[in-house]
Amino acid sequence: MAALTRADAEALDAADPIAAVRGAFVLPDGLVYLDGNSLGALPRRAVERVGDAVAREWGEGLVSSWNEHGWIDLPARVAAKIAPLVGARPSEVAVADSTSVNLFKLLAGGLRLRPGRRMIVSERGNFPTDVYVAQGLGALLGDVELRLVARDELAAALDDRVAVLMLTHVDFRTGEVHDMPDLTRAAHDAGALALWDLAHSAGALPVDLDGCGVDLAVGCGYKYLNGGPGAPAFAFVAEAHHTRFETPLAGWMGHAAPFAFDTRYEPAPGVARLLCGTPPVLSLVALECGVDTVAAAGVDRLRRKSVALGELFIRLVEQECAAFGLEPASPRDAGRRGSQVSFRHAEAFAIVRALVARRVVGDFREPDVLRFGLAPAYLRFVDVFDAVAALHDVMARGEWERPEHRRRTRVT
Amino acid sequence: MAALTRADAEALDAADPIAAVRGAFVLPDGLVYLDGNSLGALPRRAVERVGDAVAREWGEGLVSSWNEHGWIDLPARVAAKIAPLVGARPSEVAVADSTSVNLFKLLAGGLRLRPGRRMIVSERGNFPTDVYVAQGLGALLGDVELRLVARDELAAALDDRVAVLMLTHVDFRTGEVHDMPDLTRAAHDAGALALWDLAHSAGALPVDLDGCGVDLAVGCGYKYLNGGPGAPAFAFVAEAHHTRFETPLAGWMGHAAPFAFDTRYEPAPGVARLLCGTPPVLSLVALECGVDTVAAAGVDRLRRKSVALGELFIRLVEQECAAFGLEPASPRDAGRRGSQVSFRHAEAFAIVRALVARRVVGDFREPDVLRFGLAPAYLRFVDVFDAVAALHDVMARGEWERPEHRRRTRVT
Repeated sequence: MAALTRADAEALDAADPIAAVRGAFVLPDGLVYLDGNSLGALPRRAVERVGDAVAREWGEGLVSSWNEHGWIDLPARVAAKIAPLVGARPSEVAVADSTSVNLFKLLAGGLRLRPGRRMIVSERGNFPTDVYVAQGLGALLGDVELRLVARDELAAALDDRVAVLMLTHVDFRTGEVHDMPDLTRAAHDAGALALWDLAHSAGALPVDLDGCGVDLAVGCGYKYLNGGPGAPAFAFVAEAHHTRFETPLAGWMGHAAPFAFDTRYEPAPGVARLLCGTPPVLSLVALECGVDTVAAAGVDRLRRKSVALGELFIRLVEQECAAFGLEPASPRDAGRRGSQVSFRHAEAFAIVRALVARRVVGDFREPDVLRFGLAPAYLRFVDVFDAVAALHDVMARGEWERPEHRRRTRVT
Repeated sequence: MAALTRADAEALDAADPIAAVRGAFVLPDGLVYLDGNSLGALPRRAVERVGDAVAREWGEGLVSSWNEHGWIDLPARVAAKIAPLVGARPSEVAVADSTSVNLFKLLAGGLRLRPGRRMIVSERGNFPTDVYVAQGLGALLGDVELRLVARDELAAALDDRVAVLMLTHVDFRTGEVHDMPDLTRAAHDAGALALWDLAHSAGALPVDLDGCGVDLAVGCGYKYLNGGPGAPAFAFVAEAHHTRFETPLAGWMGHAAPFAFDTRYEPAPGVARLLCGTPPVLSLVALECGVDTVAAAGVDRLRRKSVALGELFIRLVEQECAAFGLEPASPRDAGRRGSQVSFRHAEAFAIVRALVARRVVGDFREPDVLRFGLAPAYLRFVDVFDAVAALHDVMARGEWERPEHRRRTRVT
């Protein structure tokens, strides 16, 4: 096979049916941004929309904007736009709070849907906050056990004690994708519910929650949905559970009649009960802009491009960086890989820092992972080419050995 | 006593030591805004600050802004600015989530600080979301009883079964202020914890949490703190409880080392453990601007002006509206009244709507309350004069009888 050149990457960009979507984002000149799975880029539209929400809706409309500018309907409106991206009906998705808080609601609600069962099963390598939330709920309830097992022991861990199987669809370190249909079926066969965290899925790869019969799911607004730092998250409850699902976080915004000011909590119908306190409108407005960019590009087209970006990345690393001891950490099979490519190296931290100095922004994840997120909405094939060229130079020239790259001061 | 005139109100404005603070806010021309206790006005500075957070920090800085623009420290920075407004040490306040979610954390954590006690006592007229949150926690735990009593039965309801006395400092309907020192002492005498909701207090009247020995408190960011619609809320845990306080919502942002990605939840020291998921940065940036306006004005000066605004409002209603059957709902004694003046009238809804048509924005609260919030940071004495003049005209001319004012379409 002939060596890949930058001209090949340019040709891929020229043939990219969603190349123009990049224009919907603000991206700094000369930056190769491979961290859209930590914080998605700024949709151009959000600059004006958030500015308008501040100056006109809040400043001029004041409290009347809850009605006149539709703030009261904003969570449901954004939820309805997220729903098709994850294979859900609009009536099954709520936008509220953070992923962690939503996970608490769904785990607590899920346990109550399986009375007599007091075990949550998850994976040892799951994203920490998911594990912490389950631990916190367990400590609160006293009699709930969280069982963390290795990835290949999950199916075997499902028995009649298990109330909820809680998994993250795409592994945050390696990008490995769980088999959602299979594991959901395995949970159901054991009489348990399947709860999926879509943090690294929503907006990057098609998810078919209803098609897989998933019971519960949460997802993040600020990664591939481009909702801005700390954007509100979403939660999914399958329609089959709507009449019986109880949220532990009963708040006025999830009440059937918030402004009746009744003393007795009466949950709103369906997923609207997942709302709790007053929603953060400014952050929601930004999230809507982000979701719109993904919806306009189309999840299937985004996935096709994401796969092609990943293939190019891996082939280029094989071609350019074979000598540098970077151990592939992501599945080679694109069908089992999310929208990222990861490698392991003992000096991963310093290498990531040296790449940042060259304006190639990837991510370091403890203990030894270099993670490159491939946000297909705005990443170009030439960006991938330039990133691997930079990686080559960082390794070939030993740039990561510089003291300023080895100093551990960065927090994210 | 001579009748008060608009000139008297103008004289009060001329003598107002914090009159200039109004200039720090965007306020629509000709609008008399008496709903700052529902949604505070827009601080002028927030227009630029939020715009900058979007365009430069998110757009240009992307993920590096967690470090380079201090997003990671933002919750603690804003908390430290709120602390002196409520008589707390910076180490005792956390900014996170919504008031409702924070209340859940504190109620659950409070119950665990009083093992063997399974009762929460509150007031029947407490703000509904507070009651709902306690009901939701009770339903989750199964063995927790929420006892709602009348205001004058609170002290008698405190016995050795009570874990937490949960009260809202300023009543959202009437503005009546609870005696925080007395009720906190009564809770302690019964071996219970005192939890105060400061939604209608923070930023409007001095609160002395540490001086009163309060154990737990929550407060709202978008009322008198002017943080914008759905701004993040705050939570207070007295230092004495820091080592033993456990939050049920264990998330990565409240972990001692969020980026170590440990599998075991290890709470951060002190109130930092009250953070759960990733904070909504854009909303936090706006909240900081709002808190700054209040801090600059000074809570004591704000309170003095608020009392004077309330006295003027009540005297003017007595003078101008005596014939219209408006029944005072707020304490006549300013020392027992928060930063609002309320009245009862069977046609309260239509009267409030008719006032809005005259660009005097107050609030209706079920079933029969007209509520006029007096945000001292930006309300003028002439605004109060003009509001009561409008109220007079609405009543004298029967404007509230128009069909468009009686139709119930408004949600907030």
